[in-house]
Amino acid sequence: MADTAVRPQTSRDARAAESAPPEAARIDVPLVTDLLLGTWADVRRTAREMIKDPAFWREDGLTHHQHRERVFQQLKKLVAHNSIARAMPAEYGGENNNGGNLASFEELVFADPSLQIKAGVQWGLFTSAIYQLGTKPHHDKWLPASLSLDLPGAFAMTETGHGSDVAAIGTTATYDAEAEEFLIHTPFRGAWKDYLGNAAVHGKAATVFAQLITGGVNYGVHCFFVPLRDDDGAFLPGVGGEDDGVKGGLNGIDNGRLHFDHVRVPRENLLNRYGDVAADGTYSSAIASPGRRFFTMLGALVQGRVSLDGSATNASALALKIAVTYGNQRRQFAGAAGAETVLMDYGKHQRRLLPRIATTYAQAFAHDELLQKFHGVFGGETDTEQNREDLETLAAALKPLSTWHALDTLQEAREACGGAGYLGENRLVNLRQDLDVYATFEGDNNVLLQLVGKRLLGDYAKQFKGKDPKEIAAFVVGQTAGKVFHGAGLRQLGQAVADLGQVARSVELGLRAKDQHELLAGRVQQMVADVAGRLRPAAKLGPEAAAALFNENQVELLEAARAHGELLQWEAFTDAVASIEDEGTRQILGWLRDLFGLGLIEKHLAWYLLHGRLSNQRAIALSRYIDRLCLRLRPHAQDLVDAFGLEPEHVRAPIASGAEQERQDEAAAHYADLAASGEAPVKEKKPQRG
Amino acid sequence: MADTAVRPQTSRDARAAESAPPEAARIDVPLVTDLLLGTWADVRRTAREMIKDPAFWREDGLTHHQHRERVFQQLKKLVAHNSIARAMPAEYGGENNNGGNLASFEELVFADPSLQIKAGVQWGLFTSAIYQLGTKPHHDKWLPASLSLDLPGAFAMTETGHGSDVAAIGTTATYDAEAEEFLIHTPFRGAWKDYLGNAAVHGKAATVFAQLITGGVNYGVHCFFVPLRDDDGAFLPGVGGEDDGVKGGLNGIDNGRLHFDHVRVPRENLLNRYGDVAADGTYSSAIASPGRRFFTMLGALVQGRVSLDGSATNASALALKIAVTYGNQRRQFAGAAGAETVLMDYGKHQRRLLPRIATTYAQAFAHDELLQKFHGVFGGETDTEQNREDLETLAAALKPLSTWHALDTLQEAREACGGAGYLGENRLVNLRQDLDVYATFEGDNNVLLQLVGKRLLGDYAKQFKGKDPKEIAAFVVGQTAGKVFHGAGLRQLGQAVADLGQVARSVELGLRAKDQHELLAGRVQQMVADVAGRLRPAAKLGPEAAAALFNENQVELLEAARAHGELLQWEAFTDAVASIEDEGTRQILGWLRDLFGLGLIEKHLAWYLLHGRLSNQRAIALSRYIDRLCLRLRPHAQDLVDAFGLEPEHVRAPIASGAEQERQDEAAAHYADLAASGEAPVKEKKPQRG
Repeated sequence: MADTAVRPQTSRDARAAESAPPEAARIDVPLVTDLLLGTWADVRRTAREMIKDPAFWREDGLTHHQHRERVFQQLKKLVAHNSIARAMPAEYGGENNNGGNLASFEELVFADPSLQIKAGVQWGLFTSAIYQLGTKPHHDKWLPASLSLDLPGAFAMTETGHGSDVAAIGTTATYDAEAEEFLIHTPFRGAWKDYLGNAAVHGKAATVFAQLITGGVNYGVHCFFVPLRDDDGAFLPGVGGEDDGVKGGLNGIDNGRLHFDHVRVPRENLLNRYGDVAADGTYSSAIASPGRRFFTMLGALVQGRVSLDGSATNASALALKIAVTYGNQRRQFAGAAGAETVLMDYGKHQRRLLPRIATTYAQAFAHDELLQKFHGVFGGETDTEQNREDLETLAAALKPLSTWHALDTLQEAREACGGAGYLGENRLVNLRQDLDVYATFEGDNNVLLQLVGKRLLGDYAKQFKGKDPKEIAAFVVGQTAGKVFHGAGLRQLGQAVADLGQVARSVELGLRAKDQHELLAGRVQQMVADVAGRLRPAAKLGPEAAAALFNENQVELLEAARAHGELLQWEAFTDAVASIEDEGTRQILGWLRDLFGLGLIEKHLAWYLLHGRLSNQRAIALSRYIDRLCLRLRPHAQDLVDAFGLEPEHVRAPIASGAEQERQDEAAAHYADLAASGEAPVKEKKPQRG
Repeated sequence: MADTAVRPQTSRDARAAESAPPEAARIDVPLVTDLLLGTWADVRRTAREMIKDPAFWREDGLTHHQHRERVFQQLKKLVAHNSIARAMPAEYGGENNNGGNLASFEELVFADPSLQIKAGVQWGLFTSAIYQLGTKPHHDKWLPASLSLDLPGAFAMTETGHGSDVAAIGTTATYDAEAEEFLIHTPFRGAWKDYLGNAAVHGKAATVFAQLITGGVNYGVHCFFVPLRDDDGAFLPGVGGEDDGVKGGLNGIDNGRLHFDHVRVPRENLLNRYGDVAADGTYSSAIASPGRRFFTMLGALVQGRVSLDGSATNASALALKIAVTYGNQRRQFAGAAGAETVLMDYGKHQRRLLPRIATTYAQAFAHDELLQKFHGVFGGETDTEQNREDLETLAAALKPLSTWHALDTLQEAREACGGAGYLGENRLVNLRQDLDVYATFEGDNNVLLQLVGKRLLGDYAKQFKGKDPKEIAAFVVGQTAGKVFHGAGLRQLGQAVADLGQVARSVELGLRAKDQHELLAGRVQQMVADVAGRLRPAAKLGPEAAAALFNENQVELLEAARAHGELLQWEAFTDAVASIEDEGTRQILGWLRDLFGLGLIEKHLAWYLLHGRLSNQRAIALSRYIDRLCLRLRPHAQDLVDAFGLEPEHVRAPIASGAEQERQDEAAAHYADLAASGEAPVKEKKPQRG
């Protein structure tokens, strides 16, 4: 239990370094805050300053009607703060800063997730559809009013009957060449548009997705600008709808349903960037393949997924800030020395909170990479088909992990705060209620993971293209050694993954960065190869048997996709740590990265054991080592959550305000005074035996 | 893929039986409903009839003030229905039916969990404290009014500063012999009573837990009857309080805080069943040990934990009824044959819902055993110290598992229903919000598991008592063979666990009932022995080092306690299956029990592999076998959830009402008509290459 310096080489030194007292190093909190805020730190800080205004905060106890009105007013304040148009080109008041635009948006979750998502509906979906799917005349006609909120709009894609499978929606837009108009029509109840923000009350128009039919041919899903309500808020002729009512959360948003009875809109209301209809009804598109055209249109709207990844990570950070702060002040049950034990000193409490801090850090770093990729593609600098595809896969891999992690973390944090965690004033429950739907909107998490899984399978298959059977056989051998396959944006093995050069017990155990990467990447590769191998017979089967075979392997494919996302997060975390110059900070964040990586391996331990990738001995060492990492990180827990950079106006939970510490101090002083007064009641004597 | 009958013996027959088409057997739904409703099926049916009245239902969109008033009126209706006094003796209008009383209470969760928990506060806590901790004069004085709701009361145990550690509460009750009164006093802010139902608005009195001090001696925590408000609802002199405001759920309950400034109550207001103070201030108690007295008083209030186990199981059942019904009607993405695939036919969807049905069944059966035990002890038939202790351990083992399972199941069900699952009208989100706090009230789940863990350690140690080292050595050897230790209400290995005599693939794989039991029980034994072994040095350590050692093993001790609870559930499930006479039903519920047991083993697979209790081969077979069990159970999914016996008035979720099927049928008919009309638009031609 000695030695503070890290010295390399001998096993004895390694052990000494590993057990260096944790007080020896501290993290440089402001430095880590900068790192976590990432590429658009300045924009994030601006947004955080803005939402210090209580007018932006969620207010408990409102009816959903009152909450909706409050949020609508908040949206106007966003406009007044010039906070919503960063992604637009200069001519529409923006600065073509796509990454910054989302970074700013992601910070709104601290104010009120309803405000965030209503802003997302108005500018991230409705306005974006006009901008991304429309052309200059549409921009000139509708962008100014949608940006200023004079034209609140709904994004009418999802239907009651079709969410994840957008290609199969039932709404039709049939072209009438005589009138040069489209007829927007809802043919049956399942084709009602549903769950649309702005639809129940505020929406004056909608971007409506419908099957474009002209000349008796269905050209697939396209988007149309459709006016909904007159100036008095009444539905226009042919338009109808319903309020979705109270939801599990986000009750500041007026979600609702819409249906259309042969509603006529001018031909020009087709948002025609990717497909157009001439006056005579002739269809044209620069993208010949209907499938590729469809996915290009959908891909243009990927920003929702990207931003949810960052928002969910922010919510996790806030939850951990609250729970750790409280856990460092709250005491329960007398410890060995008589005084009550601080919650964070319990082994279980550490295991509940510290690994979740590690995951949240990993997500923050991975998200910044995602945002950079997004910025490059949508700003035009790196806008290639390959990059778009990679961006979509990356977003589809990260968004499920971070949104689920937010729900898990908010729940654990709430339970870790006991009854106090259940009070609305301490925010954890409301945040969880609001974030709940992040797991299924902008792409159901499981459907997104399946998308990633299919991409991984596709990349895997590409490696065989044009190879002869001998080469493939050699490949399969190589694969067993865990050396070959890298799909969908994976860093190459051994490439760009900085070994931190830490010399510690982890070295002896084979658990350092290089080993972690090998284990995590090896698992992705092996799982994809395994599923691919099992699916190989599908080519020779009929469609039903092939579908059944795929179905049998669905669970494992989703798991492979998840493993892929985890690996990406680990890699981003590792790169971030490597970039740190301050030695103490780098060491402690290195431990946190280890906790993340080893935690993943522990979570999937059965897999590693079954596939002979970890010996029993290493596996047993792993769990013990994680326990020790928790102990080592415990003194830094507060620093680690303080580094999220959240100020009192962002936290706003009384239990994380220092009030608990005051209560503890007051109680301790009371008992000390009582003891000093000599009037303290004595303890009852234990009964005599016999 | 042939053969419908189950014939024993040869491996070939076994394989045939295992692959018998699932349509061959059906479950007898009413029979299973009877089984699930358990010992107090009639009482449950009565309660379910009662709550068909919409006046009992939760209403969306109310403010918490409105909701509180609605629930208060609902409580009056419970009184009118004579639904709340079953546990009381005849002289107070009851029938001394403790099991039936809780069974009825548990059904209220289908109406509105707020109604349930507010009823729990009034009659399960406040009235029970008077009844269980008081004596005849208290009963005569206060029970009639508390039972009739003329005297709404709060149960003032928890303080802002002390929840789980009740023994350390700060509120004092100091005896003034001159006035023959107790002074109830709150010495500092952390000692405010907090989170108390009925405290914010409706409570006219409270049963207040405080440190009883007389003659300068603190005799520990006792309970006092303290009036709170006058007839106009104003606080009496010296009493103060606050509203806890909006919570994460259960907003139909007026939780609040209370504090007391030297409030005087007559000496007779001490609820004196377990400890009394004479007029002159002399303390007396039939229980000499302060520790045992304290735990006896707390144990008298165990019914809260018992009933939450049943309520959480009911909530899980409802969630699965909704999600499976919807999953059997909702279609998404075209399948092999062109038509869209029903959600329940997806491998992932099966893996999401079927194992949770299995767990819910296991819980229902385990809960009925718990309820029987409770009924025996509290009705007096089996009221021994040993039985009380077993009951408390059993409740502490089962309540955490079922309340966490409810949260997990409600969330998975909500996600499995997509956007529709997020609507308040479909109930999953609201139920989850209400049930959230079940994980930390009436005993924080982790604290309860620690209680169980300590009991397991104690039972383990008892085996060594009086044995010489040679015997202990022999014991340790025997233990490795997994044959010895059985603590805390475990059935003996091989005892009472019916082997169903199923001959199937599971036999070959070593995965049948006997094997499952051996694996599950062996894990509990081994984990307890391992922790005990690691804690052994504690006896020779100082208190700080001993506490640190315990802390290091806390996570694993909690895991052992959880494993113990899972084993109890498995055993109850197995006994229930064995009791079924209908062959088809027994077979299918046997599969479901297998899914539960093997699912547990899969969840802890790394442990089994690391401890050499499963070979790699068996482990790999396990997961594949679970997949096949899911496929085999899939055609019975609807029957299994229908067997919960919930009627439309209990379900009330539009998505589980058949509305989705109607929408699907309407859409299918629309497309069929369109095709028949010859006017359907044709698909766009794929572009020619080159």
